Amino acid sequence: MTDLDETCVNTLRFLAVDMVEQAKSGHPGLPLGAAPMAYVLWDRHLRHNPADPTWPNRDRFVLSAGHGSALLYALLHTTGYDLPMDELHRFRQWGSRTPGHPEHGHTPGVEATTGPLGQGFAMGVGLAIAERHLRSTLNREGFALVDHYTYGLVSDGDLMEGIASEAASLAGMLGLGRLIYLYDDNHISLEGPTEWAFTEDVGARFAAYGWQVLRVTDGNDLAAIDAAIRAARAETARPSLICVRTHIGFGSPVQDTREAHGEPLGPGNTRLTKEKLGWPVEPAFLVPEDAAAHLRLALGRGAAEQAEWDSMRVRFSASDPSAAAAATIQLSGEYPANWAAALPTFHAADGAMATRDASQKALAALTPILPGLVGGAADLSPSTKTVLPKVPDYSASVGAGRNFHFGVREHAMVSMLNGMALHGGLLPYGGTFLVFSDYARGAIRLAALQQTHVVFVFTHDSIGMGEDGPTHQPVEQLVSLRAIPGLTVLRPADANETSAAWALAVRRRGPTALILTRQKLPILEAAIRPAEEGAARGGYVLADPSNGTPEVVLIATGSEVALALDAQARLAAQGLRTRVVSLPSWEIFEEQTSEYRASVLPPGLPKISIEAGRTIGWERYVGPTGASIGLDKFGASAPGPVVQREMGFTVDHVLEVVQRVRAPRNVGPTP
Amino acid sequence: MTDLDETCVNTLRFLAVDMVEQAKSGHPGLPLGAAPMAYVLWDRHLRHNPADPTWPNRDRFVLSAGHGSALLYALLHTTGYDLPMDELHRFRQWGSRTPGHPEHGHTPGVEATTGPLGQGFAMGVGLAIAERHLRSTLNREGFALVDHYTYGLVSDGDLMEGIASEAASLAGMLGLGRLIYLYDDNHISLEGPTEWAFTEDVGARFAAYGWQVLRVTDGNDLAAIDAAIRAARAETARPSLICVRTHIGFGSPVQDTREAHGEPLGPGNTRLTKEKLGWPVEPAFLVPEDAAAHLRLALGRGAAEQAEWDSMRVRFSASDPSAAAAATIQLSGEYPANWAAALPTFHAADGAMATRDASQKALAALTPILPGLVGGAADLSPSTKTVLPKVPDYSASVGAGRNFHFGVREHAMVSMLNGMALHGGLLPYGGTFLVFSDYARGAIRLAALQQTHVVFVFTHDSIGMGEDGPTHQPVEQLVSLRAIPGLTVLRPADANETSAAWALAVRRRGPTALILTRQKLPILEAAIRPAEEGAARGGYVLADPSNGTPEVVLIATGSEVALALDAQARLAAQGLRTRVVSLPSWEIFEEQTSEYRASVLPPGLPKISIEAGRTIGWERYVGPTGASIGLDKFGASAPGPVVQREMGFTVDHVLEVVQRVRAPRNVGPTP
Repeated sequence: MTDLDETCVNTLRFLAVDMVEQAKSGHPGLPLGAAPMAYVLWDRHLRHNPADPTWPNRDRFVLSAGHGSALLYALLHTTGYDLPMDELHRFRQWGSRTPGHPEHGHTPGVEATTGPLGQGFAMGVGLAIAERHLRSTLNREGFALVDHYTYGLVSDGDLMEGIASEAASLAGMLGLGRLIYLYDDNHISLEGPTEWAFTEDVGARFAAYGWQVLRVTDGNDLAAIDAAIRAARAETARPSLICVRTHIGFGSPVQDTREAHGEPLGPGNTRLTKEKLGWPVEPAFLVPEDAAAHLRLALGRGAAEQAEWDSMRVRFSASDPSAAAAATIQLSGEYPANWAAALPTFHAADGAMATRDASQKALAALTPILPGLVGGAADLSPSTKTVLPKVPDYSASVGAGRNFHFGVREHAMVSMLNGMALHGGLLPYGGTFLVFSDYARGAIRLAALQQTHVVFVFTHDSIGMGEDGPTHQPVEQLVSLRAIPGLTVLRPADANETSAAWALAVRRRGPTALILTRQKLPILEAAIRPAEEGAARGGYVLADPSNGTPEVVLIATGSEVALALDAQARLAAQGLRTRVVSLPSWEIFEEQTSEYRASVLPPGLPKISIEAGRTIGWERYVGPTGASIGLDKFGASAPGPVVQREMGFTVDHVLEVVQRVRAPRNVGPTP
Repeated sequence: MTDLDETCVNTLRFLAVDMVEQAKSGHPGLPLGAAPMAYVLWDRHLRHNPADPTWPNRDRFVLSAGHGSALLYALLHTTGYDLPMDELHRFRQWGSRTPGHPEHGHTPGVEATTGPLGQGFAMGVGLAIAERHLRSTLNREGFALVDHYTYGLVSDGDLMEGIASEAASLAGMLGLGRLIYLYDDNHISLEGPTEWAFTEDVGARFAAYGWQVLRVTDGNDLAAIDAAIRAARAETARPSLICVRTHIGFGSPVQDTREAHGEPLGPGNTRLTKEKLGWPVEPAFLVPEDAAAHLRLALGRGAAEQAEWDSMRVRFSASDPSAAAAATIQLSGEYPANWAAALPTFHAADGAMATRDASQKALAALTPILPGLVGGAADLSPSTKTVLPKVPDYSASVGAGRNFHFGVREHAMVSMLNGMALHGGLLPYGGTFLVFSDYARGAIRLAALQQTHVVFVFTHDSIGMGEDGPTHQPVEQLVSLRAIPGLTVLRPADANETSAAWALAVRRRGPTALILTRQKLPILEAAIRPAEEGAARGGYVLADPSNGTPEVVLIATGSEVALALDAQARLAAQGLRTRVVSLPSWEIFEEQTSEYRASVLPPGLPKISIEAGRTIGWERYVGPTGASIGLDKFGASAPGPVVQREMGFTVDHVLEVVQRVRAPRNVGPTP
């Protein structure tokens, strides 16, 4: 290590330590141990332009061990990102750009929101998948529009999480040679030594997944780290894991102990650490001039690299204008004009159709129009109906493939979708049974928090799926997904609402969950609406009584809308004028004006919701004089229509509840 | 294979095939391929007594690949469990004991509810953990009260799931030599060949975890399977994975294709399969007499084994009455009398205390009284405060340990807790941050579905946890957990309610989630209640106005109760008489009489809920004239009190909302 290198490494170390000290909160241990590898990577390998964090062809760096955020902020600040020193002083404070864990969209240069362990690992795999796909599809001979690496820094905690195992297995299978992870192997986790909980042979495990495994025995040996990264870059057919033996809290009195992990060193130990590593005790937040100058060379390098890329792009446009233009559109996240017109419309004459099948038809229609549309399912595509027709599978040998076999790996699937979306240029979707969205919930939450543009196709959406029984029948998932801020949940009532739901999912810029049936549903001609009406408003009047203003309102979603219509007909025969409201999305309905909402759900009328899931939250729509027909227990194994009948999803039961609601004394939720 | 063996294997195969045919639904592929290994295991190794499925020392068998349920039902029926042929005919029908996936508590002999992949794998690890712990603590020289194996049948889908990776890593570290898994390695998953999604070297991966890996190259070779199981049993220091190369849908025209996985063969292919394997086409559900007689030998063997065990227990009681009696109590799931009296009571003079700290004190108090109380955290015990004092860690060398280091493996942790509870004899608990309950949701759901008696300690329960930011601050988790049928969620308001919550968690026989703060909360003397009052009723009047009947009700949970009390005081100064209701558990409150509930929440009064989470569902308590103070967006990184203040958890804001609610025109939920 040269003196300058050492100064740079210690600059990063002590910026991080001083941030944590100032905040009296944070994680100094990782920065002290991992600063050398981060420095080598950022100084000698990472191609990026701190002046333009949106440069499409930058290398991606993901700090999967997000608790080491102070190290990332030190890197971003010193290499010239728009993260001034003042922000480092305000680490973990209200309104700062330096939150406790890195937040994408909040801080320039943060590629992914991390902290929940394993997520960064899997998102990095998604980034590398996206890079290889775009490299395989957008580039032309001599014009390497997309051509970069994905790097990550991962911790033992990341590698313990199942999501990382899932993603690692897939990354190995897919041969993602541009994916390089530095493993901060410091032998300490929050509770204590990793020998208490993590004694497996990590290298052998990753070799079993098909990764190249490299080792650096001294985490302070910059040359060895550099050589390992070079070896990783030289391996084009396999992802690489570089196991770097480090010491948590390096140089501090609490080195190699759990105390270094998640608490400030305190003034005394900070002083001792600086003294031990030959660093001035004062001032805090020191960036020596030589280190500052050296680290900021990234700006010049980045500008030159991006300029070269820009000029290549000009030549590309001249050489192959249509390919270049299409690539620009795709990378920018725009769509060809009139894409929505391709979505199918269905008619009653087409016969009943499961919404999963309608979704398959919508996907098929979008396939040729949206080249960035890619996805698959967690080993359920024949059931979730999520195959893009006439395009190849993505595999180790076919980077241009658009259909993914994610395997039975729901959690990694969603996290990888997040990574693919974060890359830019792709609109990824992923499917599984609604009940197994539970497995992916950690990643769904990060989709919502980061507002990644991804589409979840969750099928087999109720007890109506039948024989597979309560382990496979969702009950609480609808309300649980609606509870996630920033996630749009859409449960279409028929094939036409499914088409509209896909239009919304493509148009909206955050995550959307489509909730679809296994069983067939009638096609509702009344659901065919212009693009800005009907399902597009989240909820709407699907059918009003023919003979005057309604006396009661039935609100339903998905498969229960047809039941509401049947009930409406029976009630009409009994002389009761009933409105049926289809309410596929709470979130979109809440975005409408209060006037519109009141026009759909008139305050004065008794209302009954019908949905084959828990009733929690429906109170907001049915109000004090209404009732909710739902499921407040688990389902059971039997043919779908039998389960529905036995659990109260019958016209007779709806009529009973209508009667009860109209008898003014007996109000409240219905079990 | 002898003729009789072959007859027995084919009996199992075709019972399963015929069940699926009769139901026109199910999975014939696994039973056709895996029947030989299941037969060898059940016929030659499994120690069980079909006449008494509750025999504590039976070997446990978990069908992790729960979609192969028909095979398990065929085994249970033919070996003499109370599962008559009529039930096989009613496979997957309403009210039958043969649901689509195995359901513990529903069908005798089903040790765990499986189907969601990976769960059975991890529950099996929990069963083996429990066996070793009880073997290490309850047995005495010459008296092997607990001394059995745990077997499982796992599929490629199980092994792809992250939860299985987590559990496998721990099982290897813990050296669970009595854990033996047969891997039905059939090269086919639902979408197609496993080479599309699962090309890793499974054996090398498991060796890296510390497992013994054995191979059987022909899944029909009973002798080889038998030899492998013997080798697995002979290895006492490591769990064993036996990779058995099988053929999905063996013998059928769709053998080795995905079509064999999840659809009935159909009458034509059923006939062809029977012909191919030399089985009578008619009658269906054939159990030849020689096979019936042979398979039912399990009854006699089991009765003899259990009788031997019973007589050993008698000798044990004579030799060491107190140890034997204590073991009997523990294995039966009973507690010593007066256990609840040990729980601490706190007083204001003790100073403010985080509920996580109060929980730690409750755990400490219970440690010496409840020997079956075991648990730990997902690498967060210093934060979740979930350490049992003065008892050892559970490790490869200390089976008697009661403190577990689960590592950063939330999902496997909860699933292993389920397995430990299913074993009997233990009351397991596990801790993590509330936000990371998301990672474990698949297993939490199975806890609720099976009603395993487990306790979740979810701390850092709101934005009040502060600087770690939105990735670590729960917002939607409370309502998401409340949405799971059969799960009791308890969010105590202070240390005394925390003591009461632990009493409830121990007393109730299903899963309970304790939702606890990181930050200190004042001790509320008013929360000290007799064991059957207060928190024990789910919700109660904590503080009424001193000067007459209340005019408004503030309902709060957890840390927001203290805020409600502060608001009550300020409102009193303004002349408004306010009631404060603490409502730690919706589920328990709903169990109370409607009279009691109305006495706590009088229908006529305006009500406001205060809880630092999403407001969905609070409508049921605040009613049409009330309002909810909550969080309908993600949190932010800053010191806890700052985040709480900025997000509206202030007395001023509560007062504003009270005013708004009392102005009759402006009602509805508050953002």
